[in-house]
Amino acid sequence: MLGGGSWATALTKILSENGARVDWWLRAKDDIQHLLRTRHNPRYLSAVQFDLNRVYPTADLDEAIEEADWLVLAVPAAFVQPVLDKLDRDALKHKRVVSAIKGMIPGKNQLVTDYVAERFRLGRAQLGVIAGPCHAEEVALEKQSYLTIGSPDAELALGFCELLRNRYVRAHPANDLDGIEYCAVMKNIIALTGGIAHGLGYGDNFLAVLVSNAVQEIRRFLQAINPQPRDLSASAYLGDLLVTAYSQFSRNRTFGSMVGRGYSVKSAQLEMNMVAEGYYAVKSIFELNKKLKVNMPITAAAYRVLYERVAPAVELEILKEQLR
Amino acid sequence: MLGGGSWATALTKILSENGARVDWWLRAKDDIQHLLRTRHNPRYLSAVQFDLNRVYPTADLDEAIEEADWLVLAVPAAFVQPVLDKLDRDALKHKRVVSAIKGMIPGKNQLVTDYVAERFRLGRAQLGVIAGPCHAEEVALEKQSYLTIGSPDAELALGFCELLRNRYVRAHPANDLDGIEYCAVMKNIIALTGGIAHGLGYGDNFLAVLVSNAVQEIRRFLQAINPQPRDLSASAYLGDLLVTAYSQFSRNRTFGSMVGRGYSVKSAQLEMNMVAEGYYAVKSIFELNKKLKVNMPITAAAYRVLYERVAPAVELEILKEQLR
Repeated sequence: MLGGGSWATALTKILSENGARVDWWLRAKDDIQHLLRTRHNPRYLSAVQFDLNRVYPTADLDEAIEEADWLVLAVPAAFVQPVLDKLDRDALKHKRVVSAIKGMIPGKNQLVTDYVAERFRLGRAQLGVIAGPCHAEEVALEKQSYLTIGSPDAELALGFCELLRNRYVRAHPANDLDGIEYCAVMKNIIALTGGIAHGLGYGDNFLAVLVSNAVQEIRRFLQAINPQPRDLSASAYLGDLLVTAYSQFSRNRTFGSMVGRGYSVKSAQLEMNMVAEGYYAVKSIFELNKKLKVNMPITAAAYRVLYERVAPAVELEILKEQLR
Repeated sequence: MLGGGSWATALTKILSENGARVDWWLRAKDDIQHLLRTRHNPRYLSAVQFDLNRVYPTADLDEAIEEADWLVLAVPAAFVQPVLDKLDRDALKHKRVVSAIKGMIPGKNQLVTDYVAERFRLGRAQLGVIAGPCHAEEVALEKQSYLTIGSPDAELALGFCELLRNRYVRAHPANDLDGIEYCAVMKNIIALTGGIAHGLGYGDNFLAVLVSNAVQEIRRFLQAINPQPRDLSASAYLGDLLVTAYSQFSRNRTFGSMVGRGYSVKSAQLEMNMVAEGYYAVKSIFELNKKLKVNMPITAAAYRVLYERVAPAVELEILKEQLR
């Protein structure tokens, strides 16, 4: 398990409680010391207690990976390259890599799994993605949750599902790796734009229309970049979008809401002391779409607000005319 | 305009402020007196002030209807038959009838527009339905809203759109009268079931999965009862479902939540002092489906809880296994 955030912590809980050994790489040495001393992650889901006979926190990346059959990526998208580039190009040769990251490699506009495949010369059958409408906080509370494992390799997908399934987690395999991964990225754009609208005083009627139009925008984009039949009302797509767009606690929504209320992008980021993944997602998807030329009014509106300093109120006036 | 509830009040505001004359039939004579004296509906959206040069509240049904080109139905579904059956069978001969009702004729399991067509011998080109993700409360606040007018007659649909369009209402025509009307009924079943789950302690992860599966359940039912190509991610379907299922104020959700927390159906109804439309919708759709035999796990679960006294916790345990 690579990453020390809330999602990494939730997945480590699920996997280890099911009996798997988890070598858990975290960047912060203080957190590792705290975990080893108290069996709790001090920063995220701190009520969860880990069994240290199964969970091995470490700051040594090579050590964490060496014996693993599976590599689960759960660092922020911006850290994937700096972290993984430390590894030998053959380090993942015989491993299966499952990404739980909801963002793209910055600067490259590349899916995380595509980057991993290229950098470590892996076949697509070694790759998977974890998606699903899943607040990590609800996993900590053991509330009923559903996950989807997307992989072109049915055996890999099912194998990882079996590692996850328990009393409160249902997991299903799917074969649409790219579509699920793109959708997980794009949902943050929608949550962010929903936040902008909220910050400007738009209400629930508008949000429902925004999300409905978002499903159509995501569908058009996926059909252009990776055409194949897919039902976007499946939980891995629509469910994931809903849990993010309707969450009061989403960073993307909060960030968007501050921008809508008049904060500059810079000051919203400083105020939040973190970067919302959606901020980068907007740029990646917008740039990818320069070639594809799909009609994407929501992404374009968010791009112009965040990267071209168009006033949010002006941009939303334009956007609202394009929705229906 | 027939009806004195919040939706009737909101639509009367929109139509009259656009310049239309609205003869407004309300059942409660006290409310009519209050409206005539203060220009406000005392019960619903009471901040809205009406222009009595355009709005004519009356308790006389024949008078309300006599001169009207359009009849807008906005009474509770249970009152459609008792109210309309007082009218002469030729009373609506040359009128266009638009239903804003989100329920079916009880006992008959019939769409409101089908009942009206049958009773008054109207052609389908005289009928329409108003749908859209639209809290009446947000209309009162003049928040940006979107409505869809469904009618087999494109001119009727567009004509009513034009009566509605204003600074904060965007309206679009659609031709799927039946699908939109059924979906408006079924969304209340989903909100009610979401409420049951909430009352039992299920969280946002589960709700997102429930709503995603609901889209598929609604799609299957519509394809069986009225097959035609339709995109359920359009605002008239998905948007309407979202605004109801995610509303904290939805009566259906509140009712479901009380049942989930252990209230009997009877005591939940007494406590709320009103009947949630979803309660009847469950029965109508479940009974219609006895012939169609569509796989409808959500509707079936709600039916068994509400009409067969199966414990909500037991039924949700079964339902959760059927979702993905």
